[in-house]
Amino acid sequence: MYVVNYQERELEEVNLAGAELTTVRWLIGKRTGAKTYVMRLFEIAPGGKVPLHQHDEEHEIFILDGKAKILGAPTETYAKKDDAVFIPSNEEHGYDNTEGTESFRFICVIPLLKNEE
Amino acid sequence: MYVVNYQERELEEVNLAGAELTTVRWLIGKRTGAKTYVMRLFEIAPGGKVPLHQHDEEHEIFILDGKAKILGAPTETYAKKDDAVFIPSNEEHGYDNTEGTESFRFICVIPLLKNEE
Repeated sequence: MYVVNYQERELEEVNLAGAELTTVRWLIGKRTGAKTYVMRLFEIAPGGKVPLHQHDEEHEIFILDGKAKILGAPTETYAKKDDAVFIPSNEEHGYDNTEGTESFRFICVIPLLKNEE
Repeated sequence: MYVVNYQERELEEVNLAGAELTTVRWLIGKRTGAKTYVMRLFEIAPGGKVPLHQHDEEHEIFILDGKAKILGAPTETYAKKDDAVFIPSNEEHGYDNTEGTESFRFICVIPLLKNEE
């Protein structure tokens, strides 16, 4: 087993087209022991966003701080600290913190990618 | 997709033998869409603990609040807010908040159990 503070993990810019002011850290990935799913921590600064996109992998999300609009929901939807968010496979989704005044931080768990190192 | 506050999920006592002052909420389970892994939120009140135990399912954990001793580590180990903890398959582990002054709250993701409803 191991314990690691999130700040010990490398900070990476999210390079999805259209993503702004968004970083990710891979807390528990394949190289650090994950077998079937991985845990990442995302941070979207005020003014930032991750635009609508979709993929096979479902998301299990838990919001640590802040509040943001969840894009792709059928009605206007926000998620805030202490909310869980489930996004099924292939469903369009995104996160918009352009109205926010604090960072939107969340844990996002996805299945291991087939080609993941 | 859906957004749910953790307090909307049913609060259950953890009934593992020897567990004290510990509750769990299933945030994203099989009945609520999980396909291969599930997200739960545990809370161990000050004075509480989950004793050493082991099972096939690995754990990917993120600490939301508090600080507790992680049982089963080769040396004295604590985990606190903003730490991630990885516990491999079949490794003995437990959480001891008997020294703590605040609740130890954490997200714990495990694979779907084979017999899970």
